[in-house]
Amino acid sequence: MDFASKIRLIKDFPRPGINFRDITTLLQDGPAFGQVVNALADLCREMKPDIIACPEARGFVLGAPLAYVLGKGLVLMRKPGKLPGKTIACQYQLEYGTDALEVHEGAIRPGQRVLLVDDILATGGTMAAAAKLIQQCGGQVAGIAFLLELEGLKGIEKLGNHQVVTLIKCEA
Amino acid sequence: MDFASKIRLIKDFPRPGINFRDITTLLQDGPAFGQVVNALADLCREMKPDIIACPEARGFVLGAPLAYVLGKGLVLMRKPGKLPGKTIACQYQLEYGTDALEVHEGAIRPGQRVLLVDDILATGGTMAAAAKLIQQCGGQVAGIAFLLELEGLKGIEKLGNHQVVTLIKCEA
Repeated sequence: MDFASKIRLIKDFPRPGINFRDITTLLQDGPAFGQVVNALADLCREMKPDIIACPEARGFVLGAPLAYVLGKGLVLMRKPGKLPGKTIACQYQLEYGTDALEVHEGAIRPGQRVLLVDDILATGGTMAAAAKLIQQCGGQVAGIAFLLELEGLKGIEKLGNHQVVTLIKCEA
Repeated sequence: MDFASKIRLIKDFPRPGINFRDITTLLQDGPAFGQVVNALADLCREMKPDIIACPEARGFVLGAPLAYVLGKGLVLMRKPGKLPGKTIACQYQLEYGTDALEVHEGAIRPGQRVLLVDDILATGGTMAAAAKLIQQCGGQVAGIAFLLELEGLKGIEKLGNHQVVTLIKCEA
């Protein structure tokens, strides 16, 4: 199946000059969604993850079914103030200002192999912070999986030596 | 499996006096997460949904694997400004002020049977708006599924005659 053709391009979102890759048209297509999850699971199985972690909110949409298929638990990585328990945080730079991701204390056990999942690799800032946060918690990054990589933005360069798998690639 | 014992109670979140039911401890447990998804799928199959819809962000965590297991597509219901394309919105009342859910135009086709999924039924305001939004789009609500119902809050009374299934019930 040509997964790329299921993704819609929306011009000038969220700002003028940005071409946004909208994956919701793929998600709405039952056979395409199922095949995407299966294909990602096939790419990630050999990483032998103990648990799956994903940043909110679109990361949940792929991370949750991937955890289900691989028979593993799911750790939510959320924006500050969303998780009710005690958290560990990692800040990261945005174009203007900073943001942060948090996980619950104890969600990642020392030495656990963690598969990180998100929908799109763009500048790589969020995922670099997610990987750092896993390491702060004592976990190992088993690998990183994306549905789509925008290769022209060179986000992969922010992800160091981690093993990265991506189902669809396009220039930007 | 005793799913209820996997859910953690956190006092005074998000405000003093509120006991928050934290499902992240259940999600992190691979066998529990898998069995919860399978049990919800078994409860929902007879509703014969054409597509699954879920409000952000924790709704995605159950809606996405449920769509995968049932072999259906997934429609994201998001807070204003998050979806990149043209949207249809439904406002709803909060304790102080209003909020809204949006879906993309065309995401729900007229006559489609839509299964709505969220993690917790509390006051029912979000899900009542979600159901209204499906009907605004011309869809039929095939049913509504929750992981957990806080029965004492009587949110079920806001969901009219829709078929509602819930895996775990507790008083509040």
